[in-house]
Amino acid sequence: MDKDAFQEYEYPDLDPVPPKVEPEIIPPCDPTADDRLYHICITAISLVVMLILAALARRTKVGERQKGLPGLLSPVNFLDHTQHKGLAVAVFGVLLCKLWGLVLMPNPLPFTTDSQNKQNWVILGIFYYPALYYPLLACGTLHNKVGYVLGSLLSWTHFGVLVWQKIDCPKTPLIQKHFSLFSSLPQIACLAFLSFQYPLLLFKGLKGTEKNNATEDLSSSYYKDYVKKILKKKKPNKISPSSTETPRLHQRIIDAIKLYIYTPEDAFRFPLKLAISGVVSFIAMYQMGLLLILMVVPTLQTARMGVDEDIVKLLASIKIMLSPDKQEVIRIVMYYIWCVEVCYISAMTLSGLINLAMLMRSMVLHRSNLKGLYRGDIYNVYNCQRNIRASRPALVCWMGYTSFTAAHICIGMMIQTLVFFLFLLITVFLIIMPVLHGQNLILFQVLWHMWPFWLMIVLAVLIQHITARFCFIKKTAGTRDLDNRGNLFLLTYLLFPVNVLIGVLLAFWRMIITALFNIVHMGRMDISLLNRNVEAFDPAYRCYAHYLKIEVNQSHPVMKAFCGMLLQSVGQESNAGQRSRDAEEGIQLVQQEKKQHKVSSAKRAYGHWQLLYTLVNNPSLMGTRKHFQRQTAESFVNGSLNRRTKEGSKKEAASKEAEAAASN
Amino acid sequence: MDKDAFQEYEYPDLDPVPPKVEPEIIPPCDPTADDRLYHICITAISLVVMLILAALARRTKVGERQKGLPGLLSPVNFLDHTQHKGLAVAVFGVLLCKLWGLVLMPNPLPFTTDSQNKQNWVILGIFYYPALYYPLLACGTLHNKVGYVLGSLLSWTHFGVLVWQKIDCPKTPLIQKHFSLFSSLPQIACLAFLSFQYPLLLFKGLKGTEKNNATEDLSSSYYKDYVKKILKKKKPNKISPSSTETPRLHQRIIDAIKLYIYTPEDAFRFPLKLAISGVVSFIAMYQMGLLLILMVVPTLQTARMGVDEDIVKLLASIKIMLSPDKQEVIRIVMYYIWCVEVCYISAMTLSGLINLAMLMRSMVLHRSNLKGLYRGDIYNVYNCQRNIRASRPALVCWMGYTSFTAAHICIGMMIQTLVFFLFLLITVFLIIMPVLHGQNLILFQVLWHMWPFWLMIVLAVLIQHITARFCFIKKTAGTRDLDNRGNLFLLTYLLFPVNVLIGVLLAFWRMIITALFNIVHMGRMDISLLNRNVEAFDPAYRCYAHYLKIEVNQSHPVMKAFCGMLLQSVGQESNAGQRSRDAEEGIQLVQQEKKQHKVSSAKRAYGHWQLLYTLVNNPSLMGTRKHFQRQTAESFVNGSLNRRTKEGSKKEAASKEAEAAASN
Repeated sequence: MDKDAFQEYEYPDLDPVPPKVEPEIIPPCDPTADDRLYHICITAISLVVMLILAALARRTKVGERQKGLPGLLSPVNFLDHTQHKGLAVAVFGVLLCKLWGLVLMPNPLPFTTDSQNKQNWVILGIFYYPALYYPLLACGTLHNKVGYVLGSLLSWTHFGVLVWQKIDCPKTPLIQKHFSLFSSLPQIACLAFLSFQYPLLLFKGLKGTEKNNATEDLSSSYYKDYVKKILKKKKPNKISPSSTETPRLHQRIIDAIKLYIYTPEDAFRFPLKLAISGVVSFIAMYQMGLLLILMVVPTLQTARMGVDEDIVKLLASIKIMLSPDKQEVIRIVMYYIWCVEVCYISAMTLSGLINLAMLMRSMVLHRSNLKGLYRGDIYNVYNCQRNIRASRPALVCWMGYTSFTAAHICIGMMIQTLVFFLFLLITVFLIIMPVLHGQNLILFQVLWHMWPFWLMIVLAVLIQHITARFCFIKKTAGTRDLDNRGNLFLLTYLLFPVNVLIGVLLAFWRMIITALFNIVHMGRMDISLLNRNVEAFDPAYRCYAHYLKIEVNQSHPVMKAFCGMLLQSVGQESNAGQRSRDAEEGIQLVQQEKKQHKVSSAKRAYGHWQLLYTLVNNPSLMGTRKHFQRQTAESFVNGSLNRRTKEGSKKEAASKEAEAAASN
Repeated sequence: MDKDAFQEYEYPDLDPVPPKVEPEIIPPCDPTADDRLYHICITAISLVVMLILAALARRTKVGERQKGLPGLLSPVNFLDHTQHKGLAVAVFGVLLCKLWGLVLMPNPLPFTTDSQNKQNWVILGIFYYPALYYPLLACGTLHNKVGYVLGSLLSWTHFGVLVWQKIDCPKTPLIQKHFSLFSSLPQIACLAFLSFQYPLLLFKGLKGTEKNNATEDLSSSYYKDYVKKILKKKKPNKISPSSTETPRLHQRIIDAIKLYIYTPEDAFRFPLKLAISGVVSFIAMYQMGLLLILMVVPTLQTARMGVDEDIVKLLASIKIMLSPDKQEVIRIVMYYIWCVEVCYISAMTLSGLINLAMLMRSMVLHRSNLKGLYRGDIYNVYNCQRNIRASRPALVCWMGYTSFTAAHICIGMMIQTLVFFLFLLITVFLIIMPVLHGQNLILFQVLWHMWPFWLMIVLAVLIQHITARFCFIKKTAGTRDLDNRGNLFLLTYLLFPVNVLIGVLLAFWRMIITALFNIVHMGRMDISLLNRNVEAFDPAYRCYAHYLKIEVNQSHPVMKAFCGMLLQSVGQESNAGQRSRDAEEGIQLVQQEKKQHKVSSAKRAYGHWQLLYTLVNNPSLMGTRKHFQRQTAESFVNGSLNRRTKEGSKKEAASKEAEAAASN
């Protein structure tokens, strides 16, 4: 391409010195819907809504199968796979956006403009906002038309006022004129979802098509489907043809790509907390990206526009002569700043894309980890034997997991952008620009000057590989063995100094590789960034491991299916309309069952058979059985030699345990 | 302590402005033993020595069990556990020191002072020095008195001339006056060792007490001792009492310390290459530490001595007013430079100590890895099933391993010193100095100003832990289960925003932890710095894994003991004085044995029993058996479902294999 066309491409504006653009001054904007007044009103309304809901809950408690007041106080069952996840996810999304605003805005709370004690107001806000949006969650708990109406009204109000405010004041002086608008987009989306969802629920409720069963955890068909799926025989033809031959390259590439694309599976649903984590991570990524772009790029643009003859004087004073012509100097400086801008935006984009890919990969890994743990494949997931049991640290990690994911993604993106930016800057200013312009080829000159060194290194590596392949390894009768040992030892000795130099290059390569890997995976909590023996020292991975424990221990689909069946049978036998909704009650019923009912022996045998079958296929459930606890404690004491038990032997143990149970 | 005493402590010199010390100018020094002449002579002498040795080898080849010329061309058997390691280790040490000098000195080769083509001379030197020191190794190969005499003379010459040169010119202008002297200390030590070792060998040879057997690989008793040791029954009492109760704190601390202290074991010797690596690493550490100290500290000291009123003017011009009094400013600047110096030296020392500890830990790990692989415990070492077989990449890695270790230690120390230095600087100038002087407490002020934030974080963490412990977990009949699920979910929801902030702190902590871990372990090749699933992407660890493969595959002590026994029995039966020295020949004999001799059935059964017993206890040997190769290939094709086989099942397979062999 000719020089002119190239210059046209490289400069965003052809004018050598563009007319100076004064930065637009944005006056502070007060929306018609005053934030302070609005918050006072909405707080009052929310309180009233909560009171109405409480009254309603108390009234409808008796006779219905709702949970009443306690249910109102825990509107989300985080250990549930089957409930409609939309409401909870949207409310968490709104909360995260609010937290973001809380930290960034000069006035964290609308009730005050006291910027002296901003910190205290932020702390107050951190507890105020969850309370403010609580009714939005609670309205859906009662599965009641009044609740849905209240929810609709509340979400409409929130949504309407926010949109009104943003239309009133699209530009704010904070960070960048449109920052506030863009930053509230996810919040608007979440509120819009709620405003749409509540009327939909109401409509379904009015038409009577709302499936109460679908929202009820234990009576859902999901768990039974899951059990049916795992009891189905696997088709063996899928494994054998691919394993008879080494997979081809394109097959392997496709397999690798599949690891990064999450495709939903029929008989697997994410736990609610993971679903929330996913969406919250995505919103955090959006907000962080927006902040990174809008904090830096407008500043750079202003700097670029503001380049004038002062810069020439400044450069001359520190003895940097870019060109004898002043206009030319200005042009070059502007071009350089533009390059920096492009590098920064590329780095940000790269970081965003990487984090998106990592989010997808995480979801794939979450699923495989959960399924692995359900199967009892603890060693594969944790790389050591662990007790899948509720414990204090596990519970604390479980509570914080969603928040930690969001925070890690934010910090990860910050660091990634910084590192990629530096890397791109070096690439552009030391490699690309010199090559394009044919000047300042310092790096290339240094490398070129060192050609004998590189030649030596390459030759030494080649010699070692070639001799290793053709002289020192012989194949006889299917085994490979060393040959020409004498020459091998001689070569090893003679190449010792060269190999030290190769080792130095290798060490730098190692440094780059490990740093890059850790930076890229910084935002992911589901893998440890440390060596396999000290994995647990990585606080994020430790948290994830603990989180999985609680999730698997408390919401194992097979256990839930079992509890559901128990509740059903109790319901059938006692003919009572009351059915317990909660897994806890199901579990407690297991113990009560024997005392309460004199079951026929056939039924008993059937129950035992069910237990046997379940345990054989889900050995990880064994740990929760009472008399097994004692056994494991004993075996733990006797020194566990078989720490890495293969799956088969585990199944065997499971079946023995089940047999023992059946023979009771 | 009062102010005056304190000031006395903090300043290395009490004089507020010390008399200016002119830096000592060291004239270039030409030693009496001119390096150029010396090298020309010693090269010629070495050539003559090699010719004499060759003639000697050719003459003594017939009738003796020496290896003749081929033996002379491979003086070191790197795959040997039993040979006297001193000679090889010392020569490698000398080589490393020479390489170090080659890179740093202005005249890499003594033959020329052409500094234009320094690079080419370095490349030449890289191949010249191994050749120059080759005779020092070769003299010991023939186990011959003449060889020892020549070796003594050669090493005395090298040693004498070097010491003479260093006494002549203790100070050189390079880097620091004593750098050259200190840098050659390891070289002097290695040469002194050689000068002592060769006469000792000669003396033993004259007295006839030299145990030829000890230097002969296969006929050594070491391998038999190893086999006896592993066949001995382990005492079970050592395991059971400690495992019945959780080990106490002090016991655990002692165990942890033991992991970092290498205590020799009777029935285990390091392979020669590992021994060389250890010594070479140590020398590299010394040289790197010396370079780091002498390159920076004298410069800082000169800068400190050179502080005068110009500095005051410079500081005033950039508007830094440390004090109104000029003398006081000079004093303060000198004090700051002194602090920087102390930080740097501490960082260097810390890095050196860490690397020493890491070297010890590596040795402990090498031993346990080797012993594990001998036992066939591949999964524990590699975290996946691998084929322990010689291959091209494995061989290349094996050849370079020693060099790579040295290079990694050097780069690791550089990075560690840099990072620790920055870290110490921050600590000293932001924390220690403000605390001591009670001014510039910026960091503390910021932290103190944020106390409500810290309080909130601490309270939130405490609340979660306490509620998790006392409210949400109940213990019933030995099992732990969740309790109060409603409140747990409510708390999780309400603490979501706080947890995001906690997550940010956690993410920073994660960053620090992972960076620190990787920097500290940068110099170690025996652990991967990456996540367990991508361990092989760490080039250093990949190299180590390959290295281990060759080492285990080629010098398994049990295999060597077996080959030794075979050679012995052949020797007994054929009554021939000729005994093959090499493991290769032993292995080849295994195949020839059946054809050559008609062994009695009792002997055969005994042989089979030996085979059985050996294989049962050393399953890793199976891979090298011919018909097993076919089997594994088949089982590999049929899709290896049992990738993680527990040791027991492996032993079973081994015994089956052995039975099959015995029934032939």
